[in-house]
Amino acid sequence: MSRDVTDITETTLQSESVYEGSFLKVRRDTVRLPNGREGIREYVRHPGAVVVIAFLDDERVVMIRQYRYPVQRLIVEFPAGKLDAGESPLVCAQRELLEETGYSAHDWVQAGQMHLAVGYSDEVLHIFVARGLTAGARQLDEDEFLHVDVMRVDEILEGCRSGAITDAKSLSCALWLQNIHEGRWQV
Amino acid sequence: MSRDVTDITETTLQSESVYEGSFLKVRRDTVRLPNGREGIREYVRHPGAVVVIAFLDDERVVMIRQYRYPVQRLIVEFPAGKLDAGESPLVCAQRELLEETGYSAHDWVQAGQMHLAVGYSDEVLHIFVARGLTAGARQLDEDEFLHVDVMRVDEILEGCRSGAITDAKSLSCALWLQNIHEGRWQV
Repeated sequence: MSRDVTDITETTLQSESVYEGSFLKVRRDTVRLPNGREGIREYVRHPGAVVVIAFLDDERVVMIRQYRYPVQRLIVEFPAGKLDAGESPLVCAQRELLEETGYSAHDWVQAGQMHLAVGYSDEVLHIFVARGLTAGARQLDEDEFLHVDVMRVDEILEGCRSGAITDAKSLSCALWLQNIHEGRWQV
Repeated sequence: MSRDVTDITETTLQSESVYEGSFLKVRRDTVRLPNGREGIREYVRHPGAVVVIAFLDDERVVMIRQYRYPVQRLIVEFPAGKLDAGESPLVCAQRELLEETGYSAHDWVQAGQMHLAVGYSDEVLHIFVARGLTAGARQLDEDEFLHVDVMRVDEILEGCRSGAITDAKSLSCALWLQNIHEGRWQV
């Protein structure tokens, strides 16, 4: 019975690029399914990204508020950004925090990784925790617009509960935030 | 100075479909940026989806393990699925839990919503909490393969911390799971 297969891996039979935009790259692969049949998998190719949980010395956290066109609304989120070609996640995290918020940080630790949209993207997002912050000048791109909000941990968690924060990478970071803040997870 | 604009909304000037696959639909829009210039936004059009936090009477939780081709690995996640055309989120949540795990539930509550990938998708994911579960037979599609794992709350949270669980929608659900389990968030 096909339902009883234990190896549920899918293997690539053919892979083609079907869209190469200014930003999005989409592939369409033909795969061998666990039951021997063929299937189609379409997905976004993504360079990878970082997201930063940046604690001020008083345990408040640096957040940003940005208009996100695909969802047509202002989104409250942790500072984040895509890896440049050849860039290490740590260097990217330091660059994005500085560019978006003006803060640089003395202590950096990688907390974990997440896969943002496993159904249709290969994006891996590296989660960093930054401490020992120093405020400075932002370095936004000319066409980049965002507000910086410094928030308390309880405000962020209440925002997650109430629906003020809906961004999945930020809800995921809030799980780290809560457990780090309460001393359960050592990062 | 363009940096000082307070309204950071982007407005649509033109919108075109650039890829219509078997599953993925991609649009490319020209937008008016806050500084008056034009920009390009490319994003996946998604029908919306649901994810279910399903508690057994002993507070264990129904999880699934599934090969996710875009990230080329087995992913541990909460049961989830896309809305069919015209389907309400609640009906979709009930259908997906039954199809994927065989469980039906007596009590359903919507806990919240998340935006899965705000940079390049319009996907809204509705989070449901299900209680009063009854086990039954799964109803998987012929080409769908997944394992059902019943896990304790502490196992799920440890999986999030250790990197065994990396799926962003599931990490986000784990924030609800922890706070519901500890009685902080009433759902």
